[in-house]
Amino acid sequence: MKEIPLNKKYFIPGFKFSAIPAGIKKRSKKPDLSIIYSEKPSTVAGVFTTNKIKAAPVKLDIKRIKSNKGQAIIINSGNANACTGEKGFIDAEEITTLTANELNISKELVYVSSTGIIGRPLPMAKIRKAIPEAVNNLSPYSLEKVANAIMTTDTFPKILIRKINIGGKTGTIAGIAKGSGMISPNMATMLSYIVTDIYISTNALKHALTNAARTSFNRLVVDNDMSTNDTLMIMANGMLGNKSITLQSPQYKVFENALNGLSRELAKMIAIDGEGATKFIEIIVTGAKKEADAEKIARAIATSMLVKTAIYGNDPNWGRIIAAIGYAGVEIAENKISIFINNCQIVINGVSNPKARTSRSLFADKEITITVDLRLGNKSADFFTCDLTEKYIKINAEYST
Amino acid sequence: MKEIPLNKKYFIPGFKFSAIPAGIKKRSKKPDLSIIYSEKPSTVAGVFTTNKIKAAPVKLDIKRIKSNKGQAIIINSGNANACTGEKGFIDAEEITTLTANELNISKELVYVSSTGIIGRPLPMAKIRKAIPEAVNNLSPYSLEKVANAIMTTDTFPKILIRKINIGGKTGTIAGIAKGSGMISPNMATMLSYIVTDIYISTNALKHALTNAARTSFNRLVVDNDMSTNDTLMIMANGMLGNKSITLQSPQYKVFENALNGLSRELAKMIAIDGEGATKFIEIIVTGAKKEADAEKIARAIATSMLVKTAIYGNDPNWGRIIAAIGYAGVEIAENKISIFINNCQIVINGVSNPKARTSRSLFADKEITITVDLRLGNKSADFFTCDLTEKYIKINAEYST
Repeated sequence: MKEIPLNKKYFIPGFKFSAIPAGIKKRSKKPDLSIIYSEKPSTVAGVFTTNKIKAAPVKLDIKRIKSNKGQAIIINSGNANACTGEKGFIDAEEITTLTANELNISKELVYVSSTGIIGRPLPMAKIRKAIPEAVNNLSPYSLEKVANAIMTTDTFPKILIRKINIGGKTGTIAGIAKGSGMISPNMATMLSYIVTDIYISTNALKHALTNAARTSFNRLVVDNDMSTNDTLMIMANGMLGNKSITLQSPQYKVFENALNGLSRELAKMIAIDGEGATKFIEIIVTGAKKEADAEKIARAIATSMLVKTAIYGNDPNWGRIIAAIGYAGVEIAENKISIFINNCQIVINGVSNPKARTSRSLFADKEITITVDLRLGNKSADFFTCDLTEKYIKINAEYST
Repeated sequence: MKEIPLNKKYFIPGFKFSAIPAGIKKRSKKPDLSIIYSEKPSTVAGVFTTNKIKAAPVKLDIKRIKSNKGQAIIINSGNANACTGEKGFIDAEEITTLTANELNISKELVYVSSTGIIGRPLPMAKIRKAIPEAVNNLSPYSLEKVANAIMTTDTFPKILIRKINIGGKTGTIAGIAKGSGMISPNMATMLSYIVTDIYISTNALKHALTNAARTSFNRLVVDNDMSTNDTLMIMANGMLGNKSITLQSPQYKVFENALNGLSRELAKMIAIDGEGATKFIEIIVTGAKKEADAEKIARAIATSMLVKTAIYGNDPNWGRIIAAIGYAGVEIAENKISIFINNCQIVINGVSNPKARTSRSLFADKEITITVDLRLGNKSADFFTCDLTEKYIKINAEYST
């Protein structure tokens, strides 16, 4: 097993990280228990799955985050602690209590996430034993280890860091994410944690995070399955010492743009790493009357198994794209529709463009952009996805047993 | 190529059928042009795709069926005549006119269906040439030939015949269907034609067909892609000479039940023949407050790629089923949910049933029934689907080119 070295590139003032193997993933000795810790209590915001079946840790986090305060997040992979009844909730609470005790902070400041198989009780004996070691291992240079330890079927860790100028000071925003299957609009078995040393008000942080999620993780689909465990959290510890950013501050837009950009890049990484994917696909719908219409159509194309298999097969079968446009539930004018694959216009006024090359080479790139122009208005939306391959089937036919 | 013999088993008084190769399917000499003809003008009813992008023949049929009268349907496979602009509509009209002329009936009594690739003009020269031959070949014993000729990626023809007693006389209902991909709730590249010699009023026929579609073809999913060409039509020529069935007749329920049963069997055949499928899956949701709730949940499970790949892999990963229940958009009580695979209860009160065998053998049957009991009310709904396999990907990565 390759040990992830400490990496000074991913340093965010006041934050420490650790990831150790606790034996939750039975058949591997990979790290599966991680902690994200801030030296100071931080302002936190979160977005969680809208699935009516919520995992125990998600239920606990939703309760705790009402305070908008937090100092640590403990995350396990290998077991989702979902559909585990009352015991699951008690287990989640105990994990936060043990972590809080080791860190010598209030348990109300500790959050917990789980990802993995649904319906099995957590191996609490192993977790109880591992928490002190996880706390002992905290280091300012271990974010990359956490990005690795939260992976399930991911093939690469997703980690990014950005520096931005806030009133003459250089603030840092760093983010990690995991997810490659059960990925659907409104999040998925997607976990993402963003940390920053920038000082920002509760309202401004919440607003920025909701906005970032809307145009990144909520515009992402691998399959169409929404998870019970989706979690996106941000912790802002204010160690930069800038004047607090409020919704009215001139710096707010700078922060929001940086957070949007980082979230979109993380979402794109998840699509690139979609289970079995060979291609990244961006769907852009323009010329809609409403952004919601553009989003519905982009989502219908992004979730179409026939579009995704056609792209996998390098097959310029645009009929599948226009069929998806038609069933998205949005009023359209068939004879106004244009469709572009990358820069090639294959459909003009709803029919085949006679001048287009519709050869297989059109879909041969590793990154495909499908642009649909409805010519009904000036609103637009985009969506990230990937192709659908035999390997997706293989991975998911074999996952749990 | 295997020639389909005349088959006296599928005889419906007053109906004739033909299917010939017209060269529309370029690389094969298989029959691809079919006619269904009634000696007498019939009462007709139809249900068509709700896709906003409708193929030209569907647009024409929707216009004509307002009369509730018809005498012939001409069907081609190999080309969908969808997204073909004004010319597509002119072509569809010309096909009905040429057919009407050969049959010596009004063109207003002729309907047309197309299935196949989207966005390419019909090869009209070939079709013009073939229509007289198709009319010359009409025979009372060729329904099975039509069931074969309308196939695209289907691996077997779907054909059924039922006899029912209507006021002491034995009436006949026969149906054929095609479809194995682009199959989604509210129909799909699904074509189905039902013919009967029973005399029935326009209103009763419409009512019975709508009702039958609701609990058969509209409860069927292979992938999630709704086609531009879906068509379900019924022709009733009244040759049985029974007293006309109206909505008030005691015979109405007999007719409706027979039509429901036949439609459900055809829908089931489509699921069994789903592209690349190795297993037929029926999802039954009971204990819902409203039938619409039960249907939403059944649909969410039936369209879940993760559930379908798990069943393919014989993997009793019920977490994927409960996750789909949770994102169906229906209020549920997690701690009341029961889930059964065939007769084995794997989930009790929302958690794993400790007494259940959750071995791979649970999913090893060729026909799997997933039953979900919500314990919130007494409404139920079911859904037909199939597993998702590497072969589906292979078929659809290679289909058009």
